Amino acid sequence: MSPTLKRAHNFNAGPAVLPLPVLEKAQADLLDYCGTGMSVMEISHRSKEFEAIIQKAEADLRDLMGIPANYKVMFLQGGASLQFAMLPMNVRPAGASADYIVTGTWSKTAFKEAGKQGAARAAANTEASNFNRLPAASEIQADPNAAYLHFTSNETIHGVEWKSEPIPPAGVPLICDMSSDFLSRPVDVSRYALIYAGAQKNAGPAGVVVVIARDDMLARTPANLPVMLDYKLLAESGSLHNTPPCWSIYIVGLVLEWLKGLGGLEAMARINQEKAGLVYRAIDGSGGFYRGHAVPEARSNMNVPFRMPSEELENKFVKEATAAGLVGLKGHRSVGGLRASIYNALPRPSVEALVQFMADFQKKEG
Amino acid sequence: MSPTLKRAHNFNAGPAVLPLPVLEKAQADLLDYCGTGMSVMEISHRSKEFEAIIQKAEADLRDLMGIPANYKVMFLQGGASLQFAMLPMNVRPAGASADYIVTGTWSKTAFKEAGKQGAARAAANTEASNFNRLPAASEIQADPNAAYLHFTSNETIHGVEWKSEPIPPAGVPLICDMSSDFLSRPVDVSRYALIYAGAQKNAGPAGVVVVIARDDMLARTPANLPVMLDYKLLAESGSLHNTPPCWSIYIVGLVLEWLKGLGGLEAMARINQEKAGLVYRAIDGSGGFYRGHAVPEARSNMNVPFRMPSEELENKFVKEATAAGLVGLKGHRSVGGLRASIYNALPRPSVEALVQFMADFQKKEG
Repeated sequence: MSPTLKRAHNFNAGPAVLPLPVLEKAQADLLDYCGTGMSVMEISHRSKEFEAIIQKAEADLRDLMGIPANYKVMFLQGGASLQFAMLPMNVRPAGASADYIVTGTWSKTAFKEAGKQGAARAAANTEASNFNRLPAASEIQADPNAAYLHFTSNETIHGVEWKSEPIPPAGVPLICDMSSDFLSRPVDVSRYALIYAGAQKNAGPAGVVVVIARDDMLARTPANLPVMLDYKLLAESGSLHNTPPCWSIYIVGLVLEWLKGLGGLEAMARINQEKAGLVYRAIDGSGGFYRGHAVPEARSNMNVPFRMPSEELENKFVKEATAAGLVGLKGHRSVGGLRASIYNALPRPSVEALVQFMADFQKKEG
Repeated sequence: MSPTLKRAHNFNAGPAVLPLPVLEKAQADLLDYCGTGMSVMEISHRSKEFEAIIQKAEADLRDLMGIPANYKVMFLQGGASLQFAMLPMNVRPAGASADYIVTGTWSKTAFKEAGKQGAARAAANTEASNFNRLPAASEIQADPNAAYLHFTSNETIHGVEWKSEPIPPAGVPLICDMSSDFLSRPVDVSRYALIYAGAQKNAGPAGVVVVIARDDMLARTPANLPVMLDYKLLAESGSLHNTPPCWSIYIVGLVLEWLKGLGGLEAMARINQEKAGLVYRAIDGSGGFYRGHAVPEARSNMNVPFRMPSEELENKFVKEATAAGLVGLKGHRSVGGLRASIYNALPRPSVEALVQFMADFQKKEG
């Protein structure tokens, strides 16, 4: 890092901070990738150079997450939002119903999309408490005949995160939108039938979504879907049915390399736990000046929405924090207040700067 | 350009060569965009910086193409291949039929996708001559009640390009896949109801597709489509319903700035005409050693597929050209032989290098 390079403390919810070594590598190679005399943006998606990029990205992802051999990995477009529609199109057989655990804006949106084209049921819904908690196991009324049970492992807006997966009824596949805590900790992939995650939180830039699907889920794809909505065809083509989002996949690959260099997901989880601990201790130690949105047992290690005694103070906080180089702290309008997104690539010193700023601000205004 | 920078002569069909000043700007700003202390990949799609990027890209596109006010511009994902499905979903009313002029692999694929979900008809089809020509006006049997008439302005694989638009029956909207000659020449947008174009030929990197739709086409979108497949909603949100492919849109914006600096589409068309002229003169002057796939009156200014006396010679040509720094010349398997893609950003010296190489190769092997 050049001594004159200015970097923001970047608390954006997504697109979000990327690891500096990833950006430096992308910058260095931008005009001439591996001696080709071309940018990664200029090489054919059928070239041996790009094949190496996408194959290494998949291999590193399999290695980091321990993805079993009977799962396919896809790098697709349209974000998690398109997956909300592709998932039921492919995996919910005609006439069947799908179950959704609704714990925030994103699972609610996924549920709504699934209801457009067929039957979908809320197996649990925590909206009555403004999505500040997760349902207890006893609250989940799962349909034993559901095509699948869907949940959202981390709600970016409401800051609630599952510590372990919900248990579906026997034979019901578990499906997860993991967009905002993907790669932040180890997961046992074998408990899932399908995982999808927009890259622009922990895995890379916007423009690519990762789908990890067990073979029996791919076998459910009905005939005659549009090619770009057909999991089976996209998986069989190795995400190369048409031109993929090459640059975004390349950056995801660099992020995966960086994660491996750091020691993998166990190491990443420890670092994330420490960073989140700093923020929650600052909230809990503020005597109520800062109030977390989520109840303690559901707190996310990725997104920390919190409130202050007045909207006026919240606005002042955002303004002064921004001036001090802490950006992206304004909360989503549906929760209000502040939100600190503290993804994998956010360096610990940025979290320390936030915690210090919170203490100073309270001393001044509290 | 650094004196030591090696750049390939890049004849890739897409992803393809980008203007060097665009790459240099992207490289310079990669770690710190406009003093934000963040990469473009790290800023929020709701930030004022990204809003400025996408709004300027749209304004420059409107300016370059002369897009009338009653058209919306969208920057979407999934490539032209997803548009093949979104178009009939949105613009072909239930029970109606759509007409397709089939002139090569891409229009054939668009036609096939349209047929999956409803009625589609080939108004003309030149496959019998292996797509080496365009249909005469008299060959086009257009349905006067069609929901629209679709054509592909340039066939990337077969190298045939319409010099002017086909004329649909009165009241039938004209729709065009302009992916591979988008922005290569002026077009009268008012003759079209809808234009779409994957960016990765002339407009930018892979991962974004531009859709330009007249308001009455957007009014056709039926209720209850999945949000990411709903033109009306995507247009109303200014392509910001969910996180867009920010980096790809940013690069498209830089390409549009570069085009404006060059003098716009009239200037670009003159340059392209000259570059294509050099290649076709080399073919026509070779005494049959090089044979263009397309008949002269249908020749594309963007993609020049050509054959040689034997496959053995063709393979030798590709191998030696690659060694000489001329990359991407292998033809698509459905036509065979060679293909030179000579998009906007390919510098004239690269075309001159190709023409010289062709002459030298013929002298040696002819």
